[in-house]
Amino acid sequence: MDAVFETVSGFTTTGSSILTDVEALCHASLFWRSFTHWIGGMGVLVFLLMLIPSRGGSHMNLMKAESPGYKVSKFVPQVKNNARTLYRIYLGMTLITIAALLIARMHWFDAVCLSFGAAGTGGFAILNSSCASYTSAQQWILTIAMVAFGVNFSFYYLMLIRRPKDALKMEEVRGYIAIILASGTAITINIAHLYSSIGTAIKHAFFQVATIITTTGFATADFDKWPSFSKTILFLLMICGACAGSTGGGIKVSRLIVAVKSMFLELYQLVHPRSVKKVRMDGAPVGSRTLRSLYIFLTTYFLIFAVSILLISVDGFDFETNMSAVAATLNNIGPGFSVVGPTSNFSMYSYFSKIILIFDMLAGRLEILPMLIMLYPKTWRRHS
Amino acid sequence: MDAVFETVSGFTTTGSSILTDVEALCHASLFWRSFTHWIGGMGVLVFLLMLIPSRGGSHMNLMKAESPGYKVSKFVPQVKNNARTLYRIYLGMTLITIAALLIARMHWFDAVCLSFGAAGTGGFAILNSSCASYTSAQQWILTIAMVAFGVNFSFYYLMLIRRPKDALKMEEVRGYIAIILASGTAITINIAHLYSSIGTAIKHAFFQVATIITTTGFATADFDKWPSFSKTILFLLMICGACAGSTGGGIKVSRLIVAVKSMFLELYQLVHPRSVKKVRMDGAPVGSRTLRSLYIFLTTYFLIFAVSILLISVDGFDFETNMSAVAATLNNIGPGFSVVGPTSNFSMYSYFSKIILIFDMLAGRLEILPMLIMLYPKTWRRHS
Repeated sequence: MDAVFETVSGFTTTGSSILTDVEALCHASLFWRSFTHWIGGMGVLVFLLMLIPSRGGSHMNLMKAESPGYKVSKFVPQVKNNARTLYRIYLGMTLITIAALLIARMHWFDAVCLSFGAAGTGGFAILNSSCASYTSAQQWILTIAMVAFGVNFSFYYLMLIRRPKDALKMEEVRGYIAIILASGTAITINIAHLYSSIGTAIKHAFFQVATIITTTGFATADFDKWPSFSKTILFLLMICGACAGSTGGGIKVSRLIVAVKSMFLELYQLVHPRSVKKVRMDGAPVGSRTLRSLYIFLTTYFLIFAVSILLISVDGFDFETNMSAVAATLNNIGPGFSVVGPTSNFSMYSYFSKIILIFDMLAGRLEILPMLIMLYPKTWRRHS
Repeated sequence: MDAVFETVSGFTTTGSSILTDVEALCHASLFWRSFTHWIGGMGVLVFLLMLIPSRGGSHMNLMKAESPGYKVSKFVPQVKNNARTLYRIYLGMTLITIAALLIARMHWFDAVCLSFGAAGTGGFAILNSSCASYTSAQQWILTIAMVAFGVNFSFYYLMLIRRPKDALKMEEVRGYIAIILASGTAITINIAHLYSSIGTAIKHAFFQVATIITTTGFATADFDKWPSFSKTILFLLMICGACAGSTGGGIKVSRLIVAVKSMFLELYQLVHPRSVKKVRMDGAPVGSRTLRSLYIFLTTYFLIFAVSILLISVDGFDFETNMSAVAATLNNIGPGFSVVGPTSNFSMYSYFSKIILIFDMLAGRLEILPMLIMLYPKTWRRHS
């Protein structure tokens, strides 16, 4: 959601000499903005469900569509208790991040705001240079924090109730970590020649991978200037997103794992037509209703993607800019490539395109279907 | 499949002075190439099924996966008879196209080769300037021919057995024509200022729309120089493709219609959980097995797309070039944008990338799943 950073703050990236003034003037605003990241992180819908007593009927439909991934059936029935537990984990992890940054000698205001941004994967840093001016240690702490907040919170829940074996067996978390390690390594090799030491390349590669896959949107390097291979990896990570049940956006790793598994199962069944195998996730079969929802989600996602790039292309910007602008907003990343790269902003788009991109940001945050359901009048009628 | 045009013919687009020599030298090769378009048009698999007597077992699995769209159940049981009827329609339409071009005073060799290209939606023209040097009348005939060969052949079959009402009610054909009219009109408005008259703009817009949506790949204008909006429409038409049961490539209009319908049905069912509505196409309900295959197809399609742009990005070309190179090959179009635009070629890609793009061309032509099944060893074992 930090796509409109420069526009909102009203300052351009002309240098750091005015930053002290900005900080002095905007301390309260910056804190509020980061605080909204933190509040928004756990999902507006779960938050509303905790505060507003259940009346049955329509809003449960929203809830059903909002919860990402295959774990939905376990969380819905006891949404209040689960929400409380999740908030506790969330608060605890935020405090740990703040403490780690303070130990690494970050100013307390920066530490609090950046931790809020990392926790909610919202991603406004408080400097126009984003996170580039911090020390390596501070950047590594942020990298780890972002990755940690992109993990499915069921992982921490299982850890909390002392079932570490089940936690470590979670296929989604394993897949997520594997994607991060593979992407970070590939980018490091691809960008090594651009930096003075291999350590710097590793640091920048993993920071950018963490910030993009978790859809946080911080930056320590102008990745728009990286080679095509690295940019393509980052573009695909934008779409991939973090784990279901985390604060991140995107399609989510669990959805991709189930989609790939069902693809291979289909191949198997075309050759063995009498087979009755099912797609399994963490050992449990994935129901056909869940699979259907997954496919409908993917279809809707790519349709919104296609319609959005078509509509904003009226402004005449290049293909890469438009593709990455939609990817950055629909997946709640922040910066894209080219004209909307990490050192610039979305201000040159017309009002019409901005409305499209605002829709994409909201649809991405609300997991798409609730956004469409909200526009559907019958949702708001009481069922008899 | 004309992606490798320049590479294959070995000539660059430096001018038209050498064209006479080329034609003289390569008449036989050009004819053979166009003839392969025509042979390939109706699908290698159907062709093989007609010549090779059925032995039951494994190759039916290939057939099942190859036939696009929801009509598969009607064609499979009597594949031989249907194939014969389809070939007759195909031959008849090709002869009509040749006759029309001859009446419009095209040279007989050009008329035959271009008709073969349009019929098979293969798309090698015989001049390096593709179809730009022909008269407006000849270009309009080609436009209509390409559109006609992109229509689901069930339409002509129904016409042939005197059921014009059923033919005209086919939702896929209606959707296909609507997409062509809407895209052509939008592009005309967008490019009108680039051409001397509105007639020229309409001609170029509809020729390019027809050549891209049917995945033929002829060109009368360098659409890479068109505004972003027109290019985005063409990019989306590349992915859309023509009707199922035609010679065109791409995802196919029927798949997109069913996907959009099932998306709206899902929204409806989230609000009305007890509803038992089904997705319908031409009045008949679409079975859950067919829907599943559709989704798996779409998932596989986008996965291959993503992996392909990632792999070819190693060569370092820009995002637009890579995206459109994969779109052009996976959908069997021919030209893409930017470095692989209609006036240039794919020769600058490395051997590695060319292998990826060759895989994409084959996978796109074979409807993806059979390509993957062919690599799966158990496919070739006899079932007991």
